[in-house]
Amino acid sequence: MQSYTDCIPCFVRQAHDALRQVTKDDEALVHRTLQRVMREAAEFPLSETPPVMAQITHRIIREETGNPDPYAEIKAESTRLALELAEEARGVIKASINPFQMALRFSIAGNIMDFALTTKWSQLALDSFIEDTCFQALEKKPVEQLRAAVKNARSILVLGDNAGETVFDKLLIEQLGDAEIFYAVKGAPVINDATLADAEAAGLDTVAKLVENGSDAPGTILDDCSDAFRQLFNEADLVIAKGQANYESLSSCSRPLFFLTRVKCPVIGRDLGEPVGSWVVKEHVVESRNVQGQKSMSDLGPKGALS
Amino acid sequence: MQSYTDCIPCFVRQAHDALRQVTKDDEALVHRTLQRVMREAAEFPLSETPPVMAQITHRIIREETGNPDPYAEIKAESTRLALELAEEARGVIKASINPFQMALRFSIAGNIMDFALTTKWSQLALDSFIEDTCFQALEKKPVEQLRAAVKNARSILVLGDNAGETVFDKLLIEQLGDAEIFYAVKGAPVINDATLADAEAAGLDTVAKLVENGSDAPGTILDDCSDAFRQLFNEADLVIAKGQANYESLSSCSRPLFFLTRVKCPVIGRDLGEPVGSWVVKEHVVESRNVQGQKSMSDLGPKGALS
Repeated sequence: MQSYTDCIPCFVRQAHDALRQVTKDDEALVHRTLQRVMREAAEFPLSETPPVMAQITHRIIREETGNPDPYAEIKAESTRLALELAEEARGVIKASINPFQMALRFSIAGNIMDFALTTKWSQLALDSFIEDTCFQALEKKPVEQLRAAVKNARSILVLGDNAGETVFDKLLIEQLGDAEIFYAVKGAPVINDATLADAEAAGLDTVAKLVENGSDAPGTILDDCSDAFRQLFNEADLVIAKGQANYESLSSCSRPLFFLTRVKCPVIGRDLGEPVGSWVVKEHVVESRNVQGQKSMSDLGPKGALS
Repeated sequence: MQSYTDCIPCFVRQAHDALRQVTKDDEALVHRTLQRVMREAAEFPLSETPPVMAQITHRIIREETGNPDPYAEIKAESTRLALELAEEARGVIKASINPFQMALRFSIAGNIMDFALTTKWSQLALDSFIEDTCFQALEKKPVEQLRAAVKNARSILVLGDNAGETVFDKLLIEQLGDAEIFYAVKGAPVINDATLADAEAAGLDTVAKLVENGSDAPGTILDDCSDAFRQLFNEADLVIAKGQANYESLSSCSRPLFFLTRVKCPVIGRDLGEPVGSWVVKEHVVESRNVQGQKSMSDLGPKGALS
């Protein structure tokens, strides 16, 4: 997904929010850093995806502040809160007549832990987390498409999003059957995206093979990822991409996959054709074309999940 | 009041909001204009007041879009809505045991019509406008100080703020007794601030002498105003400054005056020492010092309202 002018105020706001994680009173530091971010934002081409600008922004912030992980505390707190809710959620999934769908719901619900949009907790949202998760509207058809794809896949790559959300992704992975599961995390801290340490703190290493993507961008900017990760991305029977930034960075990618996200941003909502507040399971279909350099569905082999 | 780094995301957001008044779909125009605004914002010294940046921003927007008054429609609609409420409000004032205080309340209440902060109407807020105005907490002491200052003044200058709000300022002016009343408007359109035409549409010309301040900045940047306006500002027995931008631009000025505003921004709230949501009547006291070039209270003459 390209960037839009609506993203520009958000770039600056997000930079300021991140800086406030590092310092409440060093205005000179915040100012100097915002100045660099604005100079970059002024030259940023809208043809690039928003995570590209976020990557630039958070590199500047880490460099200027000397803080390698401004959201470390928020990430630890997110994981702690999510772990507190996890046992109850697992019970709800187990008791459900449709455990796969219920686990899928919790995985999307966990996407509330997104501090790219706000740095404020909503205790209210957490209090009603379990109930909201059970009753939120969710389109049935793509859920069944994903269930079928899971059944057909021998290998599944889940592209993680935020720390804390990871805890609920574990509940989903527990419902994915016998496939070999890979769980991708960022190669280095950016916003509150999960890194290897965050995924381990959520216990994901007990249910999936953890894979660093080699990038410090939110979402998955394939060109910025490691060769090993790209190979896995291309070869996995099924890819499940979590969160808005993965949608932003992969909505035009040349392999089929499934997006799971809450719609929290009106620009992404418009691009997805879904209103803010909705929960989305969306199959990304790639037309099979025998154009050189264009990945064909058949390249995925006989078990290409979506063929 | 100086600018803070918290103002910077708001500068960019406000520019984008203003551009959206002009075009919903010309992304190239919006982008080009935001790029110029960000380049200026990156170099903007925080020692300047926020209205200085707003002036720069809205000049760029008018120049790039070729639209001399992006908020023209919003201003006309604000005035229309305010006029619909005005007769009921006048009745409430007339029936009140304290018509001056009630009129003052409506003048502050009218400051809801501020599109520097949002471009969305809150119909809910308008529905309960009269009732909220009657029951909103308002500190008594500064109201009585202002009442005394009004009684002692032969000439009163009201510094207007937004179109629409003007309608309620008229209700206040009707309670200011026999003093000669001047009502200052902007010299040219900026955001939804009232210009001469907007004040006339509100009927203010029937109760006050309308004065253009010669500036296209929000608030009152004295150095940017006309000589004639500055003279009036310095010589009026009493100055009543409406709205946040007047506070931002005059909080360090060298003459005494009264600020009347809703606190809608946390940065201004912190500077004022009042929480967001509160309504403020605040006397700006200037210590009398016989420093050359520093205006002394005694310069205001024997009727200096606050001496």
